[in-house]
Amino acid sequence: MGFARNQIFYNLQKGSPMSKQHTIGSYLIDKLSSHGVGHIFGVPGDYVLGLYKQLEDSKLKVINTCDEQGAGFAADAYARVNGLGAVCVTYCVGGLKVANTTAQAFAEKSPVVVISGAPGTNERTKTPLLHHRVRDFDTQLKVFEQLTVASTVLDDPRTACSEIDRVFAAALRYKRPVYIELPRDMVSAPADPPQKSNDTVRSSDPVALDEALREAVGIISAAKKPVILAGVEMHRFGLQDALLKLLDKTKIPVASTILSKSVVVENHPQYLGVYEGAMGREEVREYIESSDCLILLGVFMSDVNLGIFTAHLDQGKSISVTSEKVSIQHHSYDGVEMDDFIAGLIAADMGKRKVPDIPNPPLPEPANPTTGKPMTVRYLFQRLNSFLDDNTIVIADPGDAMFAAIDMNIHCATEFLSPAYYTSLGFAVPASIGAQLANPQLRPLVLVGDGAFQMTGMEVASIARFGLTPIIIVLNNQGYGTERPMLDGAFNDIPSLNYARIPELLSAGKGYDIHTEDQLECALQEAQKHTDSFCIFDVHLDPADRSMALERLTTVLGKRVK
Amino acid sequence: MGFARNQIFYNLQKGSPMSKQHTIGSYLIDKLSSHGVGHIFGVPGDYVLGLYKQLEDSKLKVINTCDEQGAGFAADAYARVNGLGAVCVTYCVGGLKVANTTAQAFAEKSPVVVISGAPGTNERTKTPLLHHRVRDFDTQLKVFEQLTVASTVLDDPRTACSEIDRVFAAALRYKRPVYIELPRDMVSAPADPPQKSNDTVRSSDPVALDEALREAVGIISAAKKPVILAGVEMHRFGLQDALLKLLDKTKIPVASTILSKSVVVENHPQYLGVYEGAMGREEVREYIESSDCLILLGVFMSDVNLGIFTAHLDQGKSISVTSEKVSIQHHSYDGVEMDDFIAGLIAADMGKRKVPDIPNPPLPEPANPTTGKPMTVRYLFQRLNSFLDDNTIVIADPGDAMFAAIDMNIHCATEFLSPAYYTSLGFAVPASIGAQLANPQLRPLVLVGDGAFQMTGMEVASIARFGLTPIIIVLNNQGYGTERPMLDGAFNDIPSLNYARIPELLSAGKGYDIHTEDQLECALQEAQKHTDSFCIFDVHLDPADRSMALERLTTVLGKRVK
Repeated sequence: MGFARNQIFYNLQKGSPMSKQHTIGSYLIDKLSSHGVGHIFGVPGDYVLGLYKQLEDSKLKVINTCDEQGAGFAADAYARVNGLGAVCVTYCVGGLKVANTTAQAFAEKSPVVVISGAPGTNERTKTPLLHHRVRDFDTQLKVFEQLTVASTVLDDPRTACSEIDRVFAAALRYKRPVYIELPRDMVSAPADPPQKSNDTVRSSDPVALDEALREAVGIISAAKKPVILAGVEMHRFGLQDALLKLLDKTKIPVASTILSKSVVVENHPQYLGVYEGAMGREEVREYIESSDCLILLGVFMSDVNLGIFTAHLDQGKSISVTSEKVSIQHHSYDGVEMDDFIAGLIAADMGKRKVPDIPNPPLPEPANPTTGKPMTVRYLFQRLNSFLDDNTIVIADPGDAMFAAIDMNIHCATEFLSPAYYTSLGFAVPASIGAQLANPQLRPLVLVGDGAFQMTGMEVASIARFGLTPIIIVLNNQGYGTERPMLDGAFNDIPSLNYARIPELLSAGKGYDIHTEDQLECALQEAQKHTDSFCIFDVHLDPADRSMALERLTTVLGKRVK
Repeated sequence: MGFARNQIFYNLQKGSPMSKQHTIGSYLIDKLSSHGVGHIFGVPGDYVLGLYKQLEDSKLKVINTCDEQGAGFAADAYARVNGLGAVCVTYCVGGLKVANTTAQAFAEKSPVVVISGAPGTNERTKTPLLHHRVRDFDTQLKVFEQLTVASTVLDDPRTACSEIDRVFAAALRYKRPVYIELPRDMVSAPADPPQKSNDTVRSSDPVALDEALREAVGIISAAKKPVILAGVEMHRFGLQDALLKLLDKTKIPVASTILSKSVVVENHPQYLGVYEGAMGREEVREYIESSDCLILLGVFMSDVNLGIFTAHLDQGKSISVTSEKVSIQHHSYDGVEMDDFIAGLIAADMGKRKVPDIPNPPLPEPANPTTGKPMTVRYLFQRLNSFLDDNTIVIADPGDAMFAAIDMNIHCATEFLSPAYYTSLGFAVPASIGAQLANPQLRPLVLVGDGAFQMTGMEVASIARFGLTPIIIVLNNQGYGTERPMLDGAFNDIPSLNYARIPELLSAGKGYDIHTEDQLECALQEAQKHTDSFCIFDVHLDPADRSMALERLTTVLGKRVK
């Protein structure tokens, strides 16, 4: 016995990974690290304290947020920027608080590993009423089975490592959240890693792929006005470089959706802008809808994302490729993988084209502030547009913050984040924590309505704690501006807060109270210099003021509400 | 047609309930009203706007909170004080945010009606990707099936009213939450109320009841030192008056649990105090555990509630009655209802007793402030104890706020609220909204740790908005004090906020920064006079300072964490 223990100790000292004696906790932590996860978000609780201690002693950095909801949104944003994210919470009182953020990650394909502590297996045997329990010990598991692509309870050291491998593989395959429940007496249980990885590489059926490609290439070659609509899966599945190659090879113009905005750099010569049916720029709508060959790559056909079904896309003229399905016109192919199909298009000979004459997005107009002139949504976004630089990531909360941001000119790829499909308010402030930790080169510009800010704005305390530096623009119109034009009532009003004074609460950051164009100008210039902590702008807007995009959206939505 | 319409109008004018033409929405609202619900908590969203409009036009008052989590906790507290509560939210992005608060209501038997808007039935037919959707249209329903005792989707006007009746009956029978999903195109659909109510009155099997009572009466009559442990179901099922009658008739002493604290007025001559095993007052433990006949009335046998299983109750000497089960020693009776059993005990002849000599809780000691003396947990609670009056409801968040509050002397029945079993942090601040609206005679004294405050403290904005007047005591020890003694790490630290300056953010309320005993004294005297808005006390405590109860608890818990 003495010898064996010393042998393990010797191997640990030498750092040999082959012979490292793993616990379930250490295997899980190593797995996260090996997939590039450097930060884990959460709030500790007694059922998960042992794992928190292991995390603190590991390479991973624990990021405590104020509330679990904030941790969930931060992990989602981290996953979008980094490729994988993780949130670690306690049983039920922590886990059920991230039900909504996990649902968003599921809906918008963001691979978040949800890790929850739980009562020990040895505590469950007599099913006593342990605290935090709801109905049965598996209540939380059953909830998360609805919200994730794979889930597991690590209650057996013999299978724990292979179970971890299985759910990680699902997160990476489907780019969706997974759920891992770790009973507290299992954290330090010795565990044996599987001898070989069960990560399977998916590949296409070569015959089906060939047939699909031949048909697609024929249609595209014959088309007079082909156009690509690039969806968010191009980003999630790491296909942005492939997309650029395809654009370069074919010279076909490209548009994005709201959810995928910034999937290609927005000054790309073939870039049309964001397509969102009747909600977006008319010339983009006209170009897309008059195309004789629409190539949809990884597009979510959802309502808000496509202008609340004001989009008119002719399936008979479409080639649609997603991680789940490849369709041409009204038929579909089995066994054809998205990446193989796009690689095939790049390799194919589709003749020579020139970049056609297309309506590129207008460049940012210079905004000249007039002293004392009240702030408007239009001026605000015009000015912010020219404020963006290569290191700005725009994070927009649903509502006019998101709609008005659609026409901003994002400089680099993947520098726009917004939950444009699931549209859960309160995402942007905590998301800035995840985004900036995932890429410290970026300074987040957070666009958030006052209603959304009041949901998760307390996380500014976490921003201050971890020395992050977002510029937070609160669009203060004293209510739920998106709902007013649909159906108004006192329920759309919210109380006004002195947002610019939040730095006094935290003894950190800079606050700016902004009523006029010149005040915005001063604040932006100061914020540009003040790079060592966050800035918050309280931008006072007329409650009736809104962007044109929101005006169009709410008119359509309002017809359905009543 | 014209005649029929006029006839309905005529009847409505006359207020005849028989002939009122109901919509599904109006029937639901009337049902809430008829069960004494006067306030409904929530955040609007487009899938629920139509119902919000109907609510605004009804007798019910809509209470918008900052975040749905706050609405869920407020509705839970309202239900505990009022007997029934309701929360109204939008689909998924709203509903899934109240998953945790609904789980708490389930675990602690608080009857909350969760109402969620949803996509219209006419929008679902082609299963398009409508915004806020997770996996399928019934994802949210499946989640809430795990967290409620009854659930329904009101997608058929022919059955909607009877479905509403069915789930309300379940909420009232089991004192647990129910879930009602209302597709937005059904809100104004005409609906026919059922001809007769399907509320069934449950009654005992008279033979089984008689047998159980005869056995119980025999045991109690023969006992030398019987004692009653009164649980939270006495409150939930409206049996507090019956309990008082039983006490008066039998002269048997009574103790409560943490969860049921204040179920009897705490100056009752037969009241021993809170029983919580080794965590509580030693003389209470000794009295209860040496009893030869322990009468458990509606007690949750849970861990935190009973001193983390440091309680030693001998089942062989117990009579246990709950809404779910009646047991005597090691056998149980079917078909015996709790209220019938207690009524039977009151009516029975169990001989004459006198109130024995028992260790009543010590009276509040006067606290004499010493100028400049730093604040301690012990002094704080000693002083607050003598500050309570007949109109104070104490609302304690889990953690030392709750444990230290156990020994406070609550003046009137049901003036102590705390989630002592489910123990979800962040309950107390939003709960004060629900509690004070349910009974405007009460002024809440909110006891909340700084960690919990940062979860839901933004709801102070809702408190200000609705002119509520709690006194909020933030126990500021810069971290998760309950976890430190179990297993400490940087993850238990939280950033300090200047809580006393929150009133400046809101332009409402009074803030007090409290480091010393004399500062507390001044603040309490001012708060007593300042009754037209909320007060917030930032009470600075040494991070190592804690109540004796917490010290004992965490020692026991700490052994299980590692």
